[in-house]
Amino acid sequence: MIYDLIIIGGGPAGISAGIYAARRKLKFLIVTLDIGGQVVWSSEVDNYPGVPNQTGISLVEKFQEHIKDYKIKIKQEEVLKLSKKGKICVTKTEKNIYQSKAVIIASGKKPKKLGVPGEEKFLGKGVNYCATCHAPSFKGKVVAVVGGGNSGLEAALFLEKYAKKVYILDLMKKLGGENYLMDKVLGNRKIKPILDVKIKEILGNNSVNEIKYEQEGIEKKLKLDGIFVEVGLISKANFTEVKKNKWGEIMIFRSTKTREENMTSITGIFAAGDCTDIPDKQIIVAAGEGAKASIAAIDYINKFGKK
Amino acid sequence: MIYDLIIIGGGPAGISAGIYAARRKLKFLIVTLDIGGQVVWSSEVDNYPGVPNQTGISLVEKFQEHIKDYKIKIKQEEVLKLSKKGKICVTKTEKNIYQSKAVIIASGKKPKKLGVPGEEKFLGKGVNYCATCHAPSFKGKVVAVVGGGNSGLEAALFLEKYAKKVYILDLMKKLGGENYLMDKVLGNRKIKPILDVKIKEILGNNSVNEIKYEQEGIEKKLKLDGIFVEVGLISKANFTEVKKNKWGEIMIFRSTKTREENMTSITGIFAAGDCTDIPDKQIIVAAGEGAKASIAAIDYINKFGKK
Repeated sequence: MIYDLIIIGGGPAGISAGIYAARRKLKFLIVTLDIGGQVVWSSEVDNYPGVPNQTGISLVEKFQEHIKDYKIKIKQEEVLKLSKKGKICVTKTEKNIYQSKAVIIASGKKPKKLGVPGEEKFLGKGVNYCATCHAPSFKGKVVAVVGGGNSGLEAALFLEKYAKKVYILDLMKKLGGENYLMDKVLGNRKIKPILDVKIKEILGNNSVNEIKYEQEGIEKKLKLDGIFVEVGLISKANFTEVKKNKWGEIMIFRSTKTREENMTSITGIFAAGDCTDIPDKQIIVAAGEGAKASIAAIDYINKFGKK
Repeated sequence: MIYDLIIIGGGPAGISAGIYAARRKLKFLIVTLDIGGQVVWSSEVDNYPGVPNQTGISLVEKFQEHIKDYKIKIKQEEVLKLSKKGKICVTKTEKNIYQSKAVIIASGKKPKKLGVPGEEKFLGKGVNYCATCHAPSFKGKVVAVVGGGNSGLEAALFLEKYAKKVYILDLMKKLGGENYLMDKVLGNRKIKPILDVKIKEILGNNSVNEIKYEQEGIEKKLKLDGIFVEVGLISKANFTEVKKNKWGEIMIFRSTKTREENMTSITGIFAAGDCTDIPDKQIIVAAGEGAKASIAAIDYINKFGKK
């Protein structure tokens, strides 16, 4: 059996692509381990136009409702390899092989690691990559967020609802991120930024109890119970050979001639959302890009075999 | 006084751009005659991910709520001219002149006319360009939708809730549009497509009572009470000199070097949504593009004067 389309990923880009494919009655599947992608990690989402004042989880519930309305089929499988066999796209998961006329990669990003000693050892024992998922376990504790960009600030603001004290450690001399968030962070007495630092090591016994860092050439230590790493994300797209930029993001192209959007370097394979080289990693942008990729893929599928 | 940003247009692209600008605490205005843009014309919106099963108007209400939350200032004025004076953008309306560091054009599209005799004469006397706005006036009447694409099909499906009979007249030999809509139209006994026709004239006395068309070389007439023109849209962007394509759409560019999106041919002027050459005229795409343009404009504004 040959599907019209396989959508890899169940974040905003994949879901949006799915809704457009369903409306066109394509024979398609979404293949993804999770629904919502990185959205579930957000404690607060207030920039998805028309849906003010959400948590990441509440927004994902709305997406899920929409998917159900359209009876979209989801396969909860991890994609191991995407390749082409002639004109057919072949998506291999740990359980199945799916053949399709087109593929949309919307596989998103995953957290980048710090790469310091102790990080692997204390994973899940004080070291975390998702504040919204794990904050409630740190009630009354001292925690540090590593990373002072948007996601670091958001994580700190979410953590302070539970933790006794929240440090923000960042490499830079001042915090990054939106002014909106910065004001909130700087106005919060439970949150304390420690800037211009380089993380050296994570220490502990059964679980994390200290972080070692360098500041102005001096090595310092901070006692704490938990560390939340928020130093960025990397594309989850190593299952495919499509052309990527130096950040590992899938390069997508516009063809003003065919008016096709979101094409990758391989014919029949489209991409959308945070896994691509569109610089704006935003939920609404990913949703828009998913729709664009789906419309381009539908156009490609309609012409399939007719060329 | 020099604003950071002027956003021209209050549809999904303009609103989305506004939300991003507000979060960054920019000094900005949205200049627009209406809120919601073309969305208000939609009887049914079920492809804005996360917000299933809406009318255009109910979705616009959600956008409006979001704008209010952020206390975004809106000037209800028509833009007559956008130009540059040195590095400053100058937006002239019928009432005011606004100076700003950057501008986002999100002025959308307006309905295309048929260009046949009688169209101007019977405007508002049976000739309409917005089914959602005017359908209720045609209760128990006979109407025709001219145009068999997505918006024509949507208009017909909305009209049949009121009208006794709905004809769809189209130039092509088969209906266009999404299969989803097509199935609904073809399964509806009140709707009858008349295809492969060329509209010649709109006739009537005080109001429309007949449409004249040609089919296979033969001139025919159809008795009716109302005509809804759904033959496409044109960009509302004649107030600016930025580069446009042959359809009058503003050409936008991606700079992979600066990672800037949605730039027009004039520095400091960005564009987003249906007025641009992005082929997918969809609410979710416009909202995503608005966010992209806003992020690019913010970046430009941050560097303004520092170059």
